[in-house]
Amino acid sequence: MSLVDKILKGERAAIAKAITLVESSRENDKQESKELISKLILNPGHSVRVGFSGSPGVGKSTFIESFGSYLVKKSFKLGILAIDPSSQLTGGSILGDKTRMSEISKNENTFIRSTPSRGSLGGVSFGTREAAIILDSAGYDFIFIETVGVGQSEIMAANLVDIFSLIVGPGSGDELQGIKKGITEYADIFIVNKADGDLKLQASKTAADYQSSLHYLSASETSASKKVMLVSSLEQTGMDDVTTTIQEIISINKKSGIFEKRRSDQLAYWIKEEVRNHIQQKVETGIRENDQFEEMINSVLTGKETMHNTIDLILKKLMK
Amino acid sequence: MSLVDKILKGERAAIAKAITLVESSRENDKQESKELISKLILNPGHSVRVGFSGSPGVGKSTFIESFGSYLVKKSFKLGILAIDPSSQLTGGSILGDKTRMSEISKNENTFIRSTPSRGSLGGVSFGTREAAIILDSAGYDFIFIETVGVGQSEIMAANLVDIFSLIVGPGSGDELQGIKKGITEYADIFIVNKADGDLKLQASKTAADYQSSLHYLSASETSASKKVMLVSSLEQTGMDDVTTTIQEIISINKKSGIFEKRRSDQLAYWIKEEVRNHIQQKVETGIRENDQFEEMINSVLTGKETMHNTIDLILKKLMK
Repeated sequence: MSLVDKILKGERAAIAKAITLVESSRENDKQESKELISKLILNPGHSVRVGFSGSPGVGKSTFIESFGSYLVKKSFKLGILAIDPSSQLTGGSILGDKTRMSEISKNENTFIRSTPSRGSLGGVSFGTREAAIILDSAGYDFIFIETVGVGQSEIMAANLVDIFSLIVGPGSGDELQGIKKGITEYADIFIVNKADGDLKLQASKTAADYQSSLHYLSASETSASKKVMLVSSLEQTGMDDVTTTIQEIISINKKSGIFEKRRSDQLAYWIKEEVRNHIQQKVETGIRENDQFEEMINSVLTGKETMHNTIDLILKKLMK
Repeated sequence: MSLVDKILKGERAAIAKAITLVESSRENDKQESKELISKLILNPGHSVRVGFSGSPGVGKSTFIESFGSYLVKKSFKLGILAIDPSSQLTGGSILGDKTRMSEISKNENTFIRSTPSRGSLGGVSFGTREAAIILDSAGYDFIFIETVGVGQSEIMAANLVDIFSLIVGPGSGDELQGIKKGITEYADIFIVNKADGDLKLQASKTAADYQSSLHYLSASETSASKKVMLVSSLEQTGMDDVTTTIQEIISINKKSGIFEKRRSDQLAYWIKEEVRNHIQQKVETGIRENDQFEEMINSVLTGKETMHNTIDLILKKLMK
């Protein structure tokens, strides 16, 4: 049986192998990966892609674990593509997925893949998009894409999903601070976490603050009205509300055509992104492999040449 | 008197005009700007460039206002280049500098420029670097560069300064959460804010947490040992400690050669960054102005062509 057929049957080992393939940077793998994706795309599933973002400390992983286990209990099949925060300078992955989401990772109906965030900004990449296509074809109901809370990565993640959610903690609802984060504009839903124990009251207040500042957050043509929800990951409350809201938004967006429009826009986004990426790589290689460029940069360091002239010279050489 | 001479004399109007010039994207201005910077670079000052980063809600602006007013009271001349958080979708600047840093902006010895963050990721750009050169030549003692807390922008900011500091709030010191943010590796100093009132104890605990996790944060060859400090922006405490620490680190780095090495590395970084930028712009223009590309993307949307083939086709056309 071919890899495609095994994926369509939902075989976990095949899914894991395919995701490794699309994440690979080896030339052979890239070709194989292209062929795989072009076949899978002809066999789309019905999955809803949900993005999760949020600053460190808001309990993002805990929420995903809690919400995930809720969905699995409701018999949904759940795929999770998590960006594993790794050190940007050393490139090493600090936390493996073993330490995270321990509960749901054991479940038959969940598939979790953690990708180190080294390399591309924040870790979301073209490969993440293709991993989602694999999980979709394999029959998953929900595909979660979790990003670390950094700018460009969040925008990329927003361009991968049907619904983008921002998880926030109690006390973060101060109106100005909320607006400061440009990502709030991309969010379809705001999930105020930690509505339990001592923080319960503050979480409610924060939810109310977000609610009242929603009118500042200009809805784009590709989003329905934004929603604010209150949850406790610890007590697993509010999960029904999140599920219903996601399903409602998807249903509204499908009727209005927003759902399709968004997926089309995203396809165009990723085509352009990949074109940029390829050229970027060619430039990097060009700079790295050409000894002349190092010499040129040195001539600025030693004061023999101005920075602007050197930039122009390098550009001329690269453009040839 | 030429603009260069006026800047060297520290004339505020000339500084403001020059910064507007280097931030301009008009072709004429760019030429004038190149000439200006190449002259100023021959007349360097003695300024120390300090970067400030931190998530929304940690009181970054309040700290900068408080620390700034402390330095100005000590008769230092202070330039502040702040990235004005603006909406990424709408492109409009929401907060002007009028609402921020109201106290020190009135002082003769401070020069504040707020740049909207639209366009480049997070707002730090080549122009920010040149604005710092202008303030340096104009005789400022300290140049603060404040960024919004997003990934790429922070890395760019770290490549603009002699000392990079991360402002954190009480309760953020959980070891794992601290490591999650890759930017901690770039930070030379960690400033734990809000060590006052009810949060005083928690802030001390957070500082201790950071202190004990410092050994996880691999020091690079271009940084001395990292320091943790405890401050209250409201009560203006700890500012002497921050000042002394900055001066000590600079002094150590100058003796060890790290200071010069870092500035050289940064120059090389910005040359490459500008080369990438120019090519990126050419690609963007190429995609935007070529109607064929829109058609090609449409052929994927309508299922006539695969995504990968289309990417290859666009690349071939752009590379010609």
